[in-house]
Amino acid sequence: MSAEADFIAHLRRFATDPAARGLIDDAAVLPVAAGDLVLTHDMIVEGVHFLADSDPVFLAWKLIAVNVSDLAAKGARPIGALLGFSLGDDQWDRRFAQGLEAALGAFSLDLLGGDTVRLPPGAPRILGLTAIGQAPACGAPSRSGAQAGDRLWVTGTIGDAGAGLQLCRADAAEPRALTEAYLRPKPRLDEGIALAPQVSAMMDVSDGLLIDAQRMAAASELMVRIDLAAIPLSVDYIGFAGDTCDSRLAAATAGDDYELLFALPKDATPHVAATCIGAFAGGEGIALVDGEAAIALPDRLGFLH
Amino acid sequence: MSAEADFIAHLRRFATDPAARGLIDDAAVLPVAAGDLVLTHDMIVEGVHFLADSDPVFLAWKLIAVNVSDLAAKGARPIGALLGFSLGDDQWDRRFAQGLEAALGAFSLDLLGGDTVRLPPGAPRILGLTAIGQAPACGAPSRSGAQAGDRLWVTGTIGDAGAGLQLCRADAAEPRALTEAYLRPKPRLDEGIALAPQVSAMMDVSDGLLIDAQRMAAASELMVRIDLAAIPLSVDYIGFAGDTCDSRLAAATAGDDYELLFALPKDATPHVAATCIGAFAGGEGIALVDGEAAIALPDRLGFLH
Repeated sequence: MSAEADFIAHLRRFATDPAARGLIDDAAVLPVAAGDLVLTHDMIVEGVHFLADSDPVFLAWKLIAVNVSDLAAKGARPIGALLGFSLGDDQWDRRFAQGLEAALGAFSLDLLGGDTVRLPPGAPRILGLTAIGQAPACGAPSRSGAQAGDRLWVTGTIGDAGAGLQLCRADAAEPRALTEAYLRPKPRLDEGIALAPQVSAMMDVSDGLLIDAQRMAAASELMVRIDLAAIPLSVDYIGFAGDTCDSRLAAATAGDDYELLFALPKDATPHVAATCIGAFAGGEGIALVDGEAAIALPDRLGFLH
Repeated sequence: MSAEADFIAHLRRFATDPAARGLIDDAAVLPVAAGDLVLTHDMIVEGVHFLADSDPVFLAWKLIAVNVSDLAAKGARPIGALLGFSLGDDQWDRRFAQGLEAALGAFSLDLLGGDTVRLPPGAPRILGLTAIGQAPACGAPSRSGAQAGDRLWVTGTIGDAGAGLQLCRADAAEPRALTEAYLRPKPRLDEGIALAPQVSAMMDVSDGLLIDAQRMAAASELMVRIDLAAIPLSVDYIGFAGDTCDSRLAAATAGDDYELLFALPKDATPHVAATCIGAFAGGEGIALVDGEAAIALPDRLGFLH
């Protein structure tokens, strides 16, 4: 059996939804209810988004998580996914398939189909995923709906994954909360569903809190002011990087957080645990304060790739 | 403006469907009617599926066409697409975007979203597309529904694209019907829609007539007998390769035809122009005859990648 046939045979063991047609047809055939579907496609590239020696089990998780996080940002319930896979050596591919099964299961996402391709020798791997979800009945929130006066909120803590990446690069496994945040991010699906009916705007934090907040402000044709002192940091992050203006800026520009960033009217309280970190006003761009004091923006607001 | 921002700004000019949300949101939000969606994801890789010096306008066409052909094989009407794009030099990217606009327009496919990534220096490009279509009311035909006694039919002519590839490799532009068949394949969307209600099984011919017929037989748990003499060849193909057993085998194993291959009950006549080339029977595998005489199978039944 060829490497491709072997890999697909492995996928077939868990791609059991009838819509997948046993992965032997030209396409998936998915019954849907009338309404809005949320569709996203994200890729990760060896040497750009992941290290060449990364464990394929974690890469599979990451590929699923970055796409599921986009569904979460729209308040969507996951339905299924199509995989774009570049074949490598058999053992790597098998570990990836194992990781894929676990990650799909964790987010109730059915594997519906996709494509596997062989790469020229030495080429970096590219992994792609299309994720499909069901939009909430209230409609999928956009990035562009923030209003002047809205407050900016974020779930969870910021910077843990960025610190985890530094630890992984130094071959350190502890603190585990930080390396896990990098290797196995947990998209906020339940929170996205709970927040969708009340937010004016919502997106996920993937490239960095500051750059993503700036994008929400730009899409909403507003400016956003962020209070560095209000950005939620974990105890582990503070233990790793300290709690200084610099460590807060590092957290706010690191990316890979996969938390939800959302705008709420001034006096509203979010349906889920979250932290208010700023506010929108007329104008454009992003302004940074630390309590009362204005702070210069760092040169780099996030991870551009 | 960065190369990525420039490329996305170009796409935004024609990604005007509201579902695309101006390509500034985390995901596309697509209103759908209740029913079956057809979903496919195909990738093409530099050095594997296309030559490094290929014109990006033709590559964009090919990327769209291979995916639309999967929709055609399921009798689906195109709705939209998500693009997975690896950035290169600006001029190449701009030409690709132009070709994409033309190809999407030709098949009434809206660009809904996707992802652009930067590759490490020297890495071969990988281009991916997810295409979404509306299944026919009769349900999307499968590959696996052929019945013993069914006849095997194919639309159009076979081998033209394979000959076109040879011509392109030799820097020849004529006969144009052959090079066009390779560079600008025309998926059989209208034919797929017309055939869907009457076929027992249907798929497109992408990797080679013989290997794809064998796949339909395997999915249907049958054997298929194909008459080499019945395979439809174009006048241009015969002019290029002659009309011999060898040239017919070359046509039947070359791939890239994007014609529709389908099974019909013995006495049925297809709703569209097509040629009967064989029949299904109990058993497994593929048998080749030339008129009455049995012929040995070639070592390679098609393009494996």
